[in-house]
Amino acid sequence: MTIITLISDWGMNSHYQAAVKGSILRQIPDAQIVDITHTLRPFDIMNCSFILGNSYPDFPKGTIHIIGVNTEASTKTPHIVVKYNDMFFIGSDNGVMSLLFDDKPFESIELDIMQDSDYFTFSSRDVFVKAAAMIASGKTLNELGNSHKTLNRMYAFNPVITENKIEGKVIFIDDYENVFVNIDHETFKKTGRGRPYTINFRVPGYAIRTLHTSYSDVAEGERLALFGSTGFLEIAMNKGKASSLLGLGLTDTVSILFDS
Amino acid sequence: MTIITLISDWGMNSHYQAAVKGSILRQIPDAQIVDITHTLRPFDIMNCSFILGNSYPDFPKGTIHIIGVNTEASTKTPHIVVKYNDMFFIGSDNGVMSLLFDDKPFESIELDIMQDSDYFTFSSRDVFVKAAAMIASGKTLNELGNSHKTLNRMYAFNPVITENKIEGKVIFIDDYENVFVNIDHETFKKTGRGRPYTINFRVPGYAIRTLHTSYSDVAEGERLALFGSTGFLEIAMNKGKASSLLGLGLTDTVSILFDS
Amino acid sequence: MTIITLISDWGMNSHYQAAVKGSILRQIPDAQIVDITHTLRPFDIMNCSFILGNSYPDFPKGTIHIIGVNTEASTKTPHIVVKYNDMFFIGSDNGVMSLLFDDKPFESIELDIMQDSDYFTFSSRDVFVKAAAMIASGKTLNELGNSHKTLNRMYAFNPVITENKIEGKVIFIDDYENVFVNIDHETFKKTGRGRPYTINFRVPGYAIRTLHTSYSDVAEGERLALFGSTGFLEIAMNKGKASSLLGLGLTDTVSILFDS
Repeated sequence: MTIITLISDWGMNSHYQAAVKGSILRQIPDAQIVDITHTLRPFDIMNCSFILGNSYPDFPKGTIHIIGVNTEASTKTPHIVVKYNDMFFIGSDNGVMSLLFDDKPFESIELDIMQDSDYFTFSSRDVFVKAAAMIASGKTLNELGNSHKTLNRMYAFNPVITENKIEGKVIFIDDYENVFVNIDHETFKKTGRGRPYTINFRVPGYAIRTLHTSYSDVAEGERLALFGSTGFLEIAMNKGKASSLLGLGLTDTVSILFDS
Repeated sequence: MTIITLISDWGMNSHYQAAVKGSILRQIPDAQIVDITHTLRPFDIMNCSFILGNSYPDFPKGTIHIIGVNTEASTKTPHIVVKYNDMFFIGSDNGVMSLLFDDKPFESIELDIMQDSDYFTFSSRDVFVKAAAMIASGKTLNELGNSHKTLNRMYAFNPVITENKIEGKVIFIDDYENVFVNIDHETFKKTGRGRPYTINFRVPGYAIRTLHTSYSDVAEGERLALFGSTGFLEIAMNKGKASSLLGLGLTDTVSILFDS
Repeated sequence: MTIITLISDWGMNSHYQAAVKGSILRQIPDAQIVDITHTLRPFDIMNCSFILGNSYPDFPKGTIHIIGVNTEASTKTPHIVVKYNDMFFIGSDNGVMSLLFDDKPFESIELDIMQDSDYFTFSSRDVFVKAAAMIASGKTLNELGNSHKTLNRMYAFNPVITENKIEGKVIFIDDYENVFVNIDHETFKKTGRGRPYTINFRVPGYAIRTLHTSYSDVAEGERLALFGSTGFLEIAMNKGKASSLLGLGLTDTVSILFDS
């Protein structure tokens, strides 16, 4: 059995998903297909890298991930396969791979295979599935193309860290409207060294001075901060919609000030 | 092959679904995963129990259902497994289990297993999948924890029944905007004993005096009442949107008056 | 393994999908279930035929497609199975089959099987899955019912073709808001015979005189026309929302004028 995951911005209301899945089952009869999501914000590789980055580590080794966002190939953004931690990631070198793997010991090749159709608008079906089938059949990366050492860089929003302060940004909002900030637990602990802290965003009255470990640690409708299962700081409300109720949207600033 | 179903309020736009599915495939390689729905009204266990209650009977024996809504464990709402009719239901004892099984001959245990992560916000991935893997590997319920005899009660809206009247409430609205009322076919027949009836809701002009058996029994756009495949009374319109066009929403009253 | 696809207008927020999938797994334990989409425009068989028509050719031979839209049977619209190109299509003869197969060498039978339930509102679960199980078990079409030679016609919007002009209509809009027109590449080439052309819609200022081969051939936000992977003419914008930004909706006219 070969596990193939799909992540894309195709939406739920057209033929793209099904055409790719049919194509997978035709070429890889024992495939187990898993949808990561198909409602990525259109063309948004930051959104893609957050969701895929928080999903792929749970999959078994050998899993092949097809990334169907901004897939049109060009000389600047070739089709590539990245191998990392015994998983395979097939997509275009449009920045998403650098967001996922830049600081990791990955291997990568530029795909050198003929596509199955005369059209150039549906690479996921016409190129990526074919590459997945070759990998599933046991071909090694260097049978699929030549080495591609340098990924196109997309600079992630990194938090700005000083002696007493971490200034981060909102990078994701889930369907509960929990707000995810690009400050991870390690950075928090290393910078804070156990000092008291204040988490600030939007208005001073919203300041939070305690971290919790689960949403229900506070009363319903109250705001809280926690480091959740992604490892990132979350601003949330117990059974409330933090993003709209606190007015906290994508790229807004959230900072942590440590007592000096 | 082990069939695992997932029902949750995670939504379609984040990593939760995929993280759980990856985790399942890592721990239960032969799993067949089926999504019931992931767009439950957030935190709404009535909505969950209606949809799961009308889905699980169609699944084969041995199916394991993971219920990913309001999953944070507490001493009041422990993580439990309910076994009923040779199926397994894993979730938190937050009321949904009582809505589903209170009047049925179920077995239940309180889960006593270590979770796989340091975080407490993602029990579906970190606890429930592990429990599912133990069940799939053949462990018996009493190997997973101690007996949990009494479920936390969530009182369902039950219809009020008198000699000549059944007063019910709207408990579900589907995507066609068909309106489901908590009056089942058996109750209707037993209370009515074949007498003529009037189904009333909102305004007298909407009264319905005939039951049909399919939506297309009336002209397009006309309202009708039927006992559909769930066994519950439905107020619908043939190819129309009954809920918005008739102004009939969740918890609104629908009553049946029998001639005395 | 039997591949079963599902396409419907059930939506994502109710029990219909799961009830059908449970039923499939109960009756066809080795089924591999693929969702085409469940968010068809309600009751819209044009929408269904476009999406299914652009999905099924990618599936392997032997695939069984269950069409869950407008499924209530009547003497005018019986339940049928169409066999085409070694695939099976189970649904109601409500016009969708004629849109898909009228001009193709199909076989068809009218289903003559008992349904599994007393209700007539959920044929997909109670009739179509049973038919799929019979096909999956190796039964031939004539064991499922009598020949059904003539499909109920639903006339597709066909383009109007004259010496120097093709007048088409918008038949589909995807989630990127790319606009699909019922003019296929063959018709374009045969009518145009290599002549220069102008693609017109809405206002003269929108006229397009070049076809491209991929969305990124033009600058971001610019409009373009191409024959994409469906073979149909698309009016699109590179990373823009063509439908709303150009005011081009379903059934609107798009015409191609060739130089005489």
